[in-house]
Amino acid sequence: MPIITVEALPGRTIEQKRGLVKDMTDAVTRNFKCEPEAVTIIIHEISQEHLAKAGKLRIDW
Amino acid sequence: MPIITVEALPGRTIEQKRGLVKDMTDAVTRNFKCEPEAVTIIIHEISQEHLAKAGKLRIDW
Amino acid sequence: MPIITVEALPGRTIEQKRGLVKDMTDAVTRNFKCEPEAVTIIIHEISQEHLAKAGKLRIDW
Amino acid sequence: MPIITVEALPGRTIEQKRGLVKDMTDAVTRNFKCEPEAVTIIIHEISQEHLAKAGKLRIDW
Amino acid sequence: MPIITVEALPGRTIEQKRGLVKDMTDAVTRNFKCEPEAVTIIIHEISQEHLAKAGKLRIDW
Amino acid sequence: MPIITVEALPGRTIEQKRGLVKDMTDAVTRNFKCEPEAVTIIIHEISQEHLAKAGKLRIDW
Repeated sequence: MPIITVEALPGRTIEQKRGLVKDMTDAVTRNFKCEPEAVTIIIHEISQEHLAKAGKLRIDW
Repeated sequence: MPIITVEALPGRTIEQKRGLVKDMTDAVTRNFKCEPEAVTIIIHEISQEHLAKAGKLRIDW
Repeated sequence: MPIITVEALPGRTIEQKRGLVKDMTDAVTRNFKCEPEAVTIIIHEISQEHLAKAGKLRIDW
Repeated sequence: MPIITVEALPGRTIEQKRGLVKDMTDAVTRNFKCEPEAVTIIIHEISQEHLAKAGKLRIDW
Repeated sequence: MPIITVEALPGRTIEQKRGLVKDMTDAVTRNFKCEPEAVTIIIHEISQEHLAKAGKLRIDW
Repeated sequence: MPIITVEALPGRTIEQKRGLVKDMTDAVTRNFKCEPEAVTIIIHEISQEHLAKAGKLRIDW
């Protein structure tokens, strides 16, 4: 703990994901005063036909 | 908010997903008195070897 | 299956929740052609200090 | 209910998943005194570039 | 990893939860060949007005 | 999107949560090149009797 789940559209590079998990872990340890080893992050990629807002699939925006 | 996550078996068409997110968004706005723009829906498709009931994988039902 | 999770702010009445789960279940059975008995819905209420958008907690909007 | 979600790295065989859902369902029914039919399990496989600990993606460990 | 989330109705004793997490962890390590230290379990208790099946809240069954 | 869920033990102050959501949102926008308005964060507090590691509830560590 903490365990963090990120739901995001696909299309980011490994380099972007590398940066994200580093910076999010820093954000957690700085504010919640815990060790980096305690922070787990999981990314779920959600395709454009599996996300909707205002009743419309992302593929139809 | 609200954010809605749907875990479902694969095999539905885009047309079915289009209908689902439209009708679910209507259900939320009608009952919870919020704007459609506030409603986000995420679909997670779960394959038949990743779902179990009564201790048995869906592929073995 | 399907299993649906709704993350929403607190403050809705039982009557509103009753309406929501009825109408969401109808939305699922109508579009995904499954039995109502197959549809499970879980509501998670998220307090205003546990929701953020654009980097700000809901209590500070 | 109960509904159980397992987030795990890929690479397990069907036989391992079969054993897991059987034994986890037994663990639930034995301790929580419910029927096996009431227990649903969902597995989410998380690829090595979508898991991080201590600020590092699993592919970089 | 694995990370396991259990959604369940309230009303179980600490002793039942103690048994559940021990037996579920055994189920994971036995089948997935991982160390017990790698297994995290989170329980979310869902009240009877926040669970629905077949379009009806649990409080109305 | 992205939608971020944080599962954490209780006990952090509002000020700590305020800092967390600000810094996590910065981490997302900097790395994933999206607008802050697109970033939603939800915090789930998990009590010490609802978290387990290595088969033991947190209250027994």
